[in-house]
Amino acid sequence: MNGAESLLSSLVSHGVEVCFTNPGTSEMHFVAALDRVPQMRGVLCLFEGVASGAADGYGRVAGKPASTLLHLGPGMGNGLANFHNARRAKTPIINVVGDHATYHLQYDAPLTSDIAAVARSFSKLVATPQNANQVSALVNIAYREATSPEKGISTLIIPADVSWNETPSEDASGFDGNLWVDEGVQVETIDLGFARELIAKGGETLLLLGGDALREEGLKLIERIVATFGVRVLAETFPAILDRGGELLPVDRLAYLGEMASAQLGGAKNIITIGAKEPASFFAYPNSRSLLAPEGANIFHLVGSGEDPAAKLTALCDSMTLSTSIERQSFGLPEIPAGELTATKVAQTIGALLREGTIVVDEANTSGFSLPSSTKGAPRHSWLTLTGGAIGQGMPLATGAAIADPDARVLCLEADGSSLYTFQALWSQARENLNVTTVLFNNQSYAILELELAKVGALESSPSARRMLELNSPLIDFCDLSRAMGVEAVKVRTVSELSKALIHSFDTPGPLLIEAVLPAGMS
Amino acid sequence: MNGAESLLSSLVSHGVEVCFTNPGTSEMHFVAALDRVPQMRGVLCLFEGVASGAADGYGRVAGKPASTLLHLGPGMGNGLANFHNARRAKTPIINVVGDHATYHLQYDAPLTSDIAAVARSFSKLVATPQNANQVSALVNIAYREATSPEKGISTLIIPADVSWNETPSEDASGFDGNLWVDEGVQVETIDLGFARELIAKGGETLLLLGGDALREEGLKLIERIVATFGVRVLAETFPAILDRGGELLPVDRLAYLGEMASAQLGGAKNIITIGAKEPASFFAYPNSRSLLAPEGANIFHLVGSGEDPAAKLTALCDSMTLSTSIERQSFGLPEIPAGELTATKVAQTIGALLREGTIVVDEANTSGFSLPSSTKGAPRHSWLTLTGGAIGQGMPLATGAAIADPDARVLCLEADGSSLYTFQALWSQARENLNVTTVLFNNQSYAILELELAKVGALESSPSARRMLELNSPLIDFCDLSRAMGVEAVKVRTVSELSKALIHSFDTPGPLLIEAVLPAGMS
Repeated sequence: MNGAESLLSSLVSHGVEVCFTNPGTSEMHFVAALDRVPQMRGVLCLFEGVASGAADGYGRVAGKPASTLLHLGPGMGNGLANFHNARRAKTPIINVVGDHATYHLQYDAPLTSDIAAVARSFSKLVATPQNANQVSALVNIAYREATSPEKGISTLIIPADVSWNETPSEDASGFDGNLWVDEGVQVETIDLGFARELIAKGGETLLLLGGDALREEGLKLIERIVATFGVRVLAETFPAILDRGGELLPVDRLAYLGEMASAQLGGAKNIITIGAKEPASFFAYPNSRSLLAPEGANIFHLVGSGEDPAAKLTALCDSMTLSTSIERQSFGLPEIPAGELTATKVAQTIGALLREGTIVVDEANTSGFSLPSSTKGAPRHSWLTLTGGAIGQGMPLATGAAIADPDARVLCLEADGSSLYTFQALWSQARENLNVTTVLFNNQSYAILELELAKVGALESSPSARRMLELNSPLIDFCDLSRAMGVEAVKVRTVSELSKALIHSFDTPGPLLIEAVLPAGMS
Repeated sequence: MNGAESLLSSLVSHGVEVCFTNPGTSEMHFVAALDRVPQMRGVLCLFEGVASGAADGYGRVAGKPASTLLHLGPGMGNGLANFHNARRAKTPIINVVGDHATYHLQYDAPLTSDIAAVARSFSKLVATPQNANQVSALVNIAYREATSPEKGISTLIIPADVSWNETPSEDASGFDGNLWVDEGVQVETIDLGFARELIAKGGETLLLLGGDALREEGLKLIERIVATFGVRVLAETFPAILDRGGELLPVDRLAYLGEMASAQLGGAKNIITIGAKEPASFFAYPNSRSLLAPEGANIFHLVGSGEDPAAKLTALCDSMTLSTSIERQSFGLPEIPAGELTATKVAQTIGALLREGTIVVDEANTSGFSLPSSTKGAPRHSWLTLTGGAIGQGMPLATGAAIADPDARVLCLEADGSSLYTFQALWSQARENLNVTTVLFNNQSYAILELELAKVGALESSPSARRMLELNSPLIDFCDLSRAMGVEAVKVRTVSELSKALIHSFDTPGPLLIEAVLPAGMS
């Protein structure tokens, strides 16, 4: 057995059975080993940002890590933005990056770079086995770190000779110098007794939920706390995965725009975070506060670093007497509107047609402002968001989610500007015949930046600046783009065309891209 | 004047007048300032890897830096691969990256990451002004470092409040803690006298040329050394820019494949590098040496770190008596072949039709093996190569080269697999109406990896592995892709179709993509 086979076998032994890959020469022994360890499914991606985003989508939905296989530092660099999003989502991933042979590094060949330094910017663990015998031991540590209660990315840098050398002995010691683990940030927490006291105060206490507290089991517990004590609840702005719809307690997300978020938090005297962070604005602005909670509000954290939010929430509920009688608010489905599309009408149509079990990947950005309200009454579904703010996540995330749950329909809501970072994902969707319906919101601009330029007071007066935010010169044909990548596509301009296309896609296995042509700019 | 205007004004004062940009919220004050500092030309890119690659192409051709404008750590990450290539090319670039406001960083908002740590992996200098007054002073230092004899990338990380705050005073001190400069690697050099002794040995001495020694002025000096002493010459494998054709001394490049490179260096007793590194193989392989020079050959370096290869070469020649009578070898143009295309026939056709002054960007990879020989007799042109081995460079590089020299025709020779990393560059070519002719070699595979898998002995026996190297399921329509991005495209299958398309494009301003359909795999 060589190091590459040891790597694959060790991963498979932990249940890591998908590898999103864009390999090169230094990874060729790993690629060759795929035929000797057939339990590992290789999924080829045309660009590393697709691989890292797909691993993120897979991990969020499957709740266990996929692996990636990337080509040295530049290949990993191409995956960095979506690894950044995955870090914020706390998604478990085993990121495998090939490097030059250990003895070859000294010659500083063209592809040489400091892989570990870059990997530390998004990883919980970075390890570089120095011989084939260390591979299996380091995979074990990497897996443990990626899947420990505070989940994250473990990066394994595999020198080419470590891949191709045999593993004759069990001597796996001596890697301490090549193993780095993020120390994390210690968070001061409150005990369950004090949390109960705060919760007993009812409406002046607000629970800010994140992580697994937003999954079905967590929401059922939260619903009982709300029913018993009347506390308020909000979800963090960008959850990794939020279960919604059907019988589940509807939880509004904290708004992206600071003014709206401050309004949502208004009146709260005590904010208890459960798997979320203290609310701060996404960006700073001149003469605005960074923190969003009302001045004088107390912020408490129930869950410490390295603790499991769902487990802590369960412990809290077990220590309280909670009502079992729940009165559920009923939300109707939106009416399907008519006429030419706007972003709001797209959202209403989706809200009316969304089916049970759908996995929604939301990178609609400005075009998606009304999606949360229009889908509130939809059947039970899950919602994945742009956790780290690095656009170009949606289509890769949808690809990985569809592989994690092949029986589900994945509905990818994608903004035009964002799609252009990683739409190579469509090719992998076609290649693997994945059940992904992409709705491409085409408003021909980086509309969110028009909003920001307006805030700077320069939207009308600055033609050069404004030109940097427009995607209409030349116009991009997203249907051509999709078909070139092997995914059938349809352009829709009216609600009835959109409805028809959505229903058709929901009924038809495999991927489809629906380009929704919207008025230019914000709508 | 605010910090953003100070930044733009300072850049323009140094002659930095192009900014390849993919901005976000934290860069909005810089974008707004474009209208107040109109000497700076903003070129919008849909993806940061296009911006970094275009800045590389611009810098190689213009010989002076362009700037970039990127959105925090993930945006810079998307540009990393082409910054890596630019680092290897020693291209001067001023890389501007926005960050959160200084006081906002503590809240670890979603887009927060360690930008400086990642930037150090490819930069000569990384600086973060802490107030608007420091901007101008740091731009001066960044420009000096980027354009000093050993050129490179200076990264300026600009916090949002540094952009938007006014610059009331001249107090620009106190930035030392936020300024990092790469110490570089000291190279032991030989003095001119010893170099003359070695050169006098004639054919047993080989000059390995790199950097500016491969530009027209350098080659004219080298030609006289060769004519006088009969030394052998080779160019480094992947020069940033190599002047060729017409009356220039033809210099073969050291081969990419180690066995071929060793053969080229065979018999050399003394190798003097002039702007190049000691020859080492691109990758290591089991049971192969990493170093390519014959065992026992002596390696000497004429140019130290921080020294200008062209200046050192001039000094050497000034210290010698060189022949002025040059006998030039004449290379004819290749015949235009006939019939269905192969990679070799494409190369011959290009060799026959290449026009004077063309800037060739070569990322043809395996499809381009015969390009150097087929273009040896072409009129005077320049050749840009994949300096750092990070694929996805070609189309961005061509974009920047065309902006640096708007009167030239840029011929971008692009492999199918490589094009799929950064073909968003086509949109910028259409938007700016650039004179770029792209020949897309479509062999439906990562052919170079098939070669590598064969070396591992697993090409035929490993269907799963082989499937990771094929781009034919689904087939990608590069003409659709190009048109979707706004660039007209034509698919050619025969030599006569290719010839017609090339001549048409050379005669017609603006961009065109020619998809050359080749037999699958290596040809």
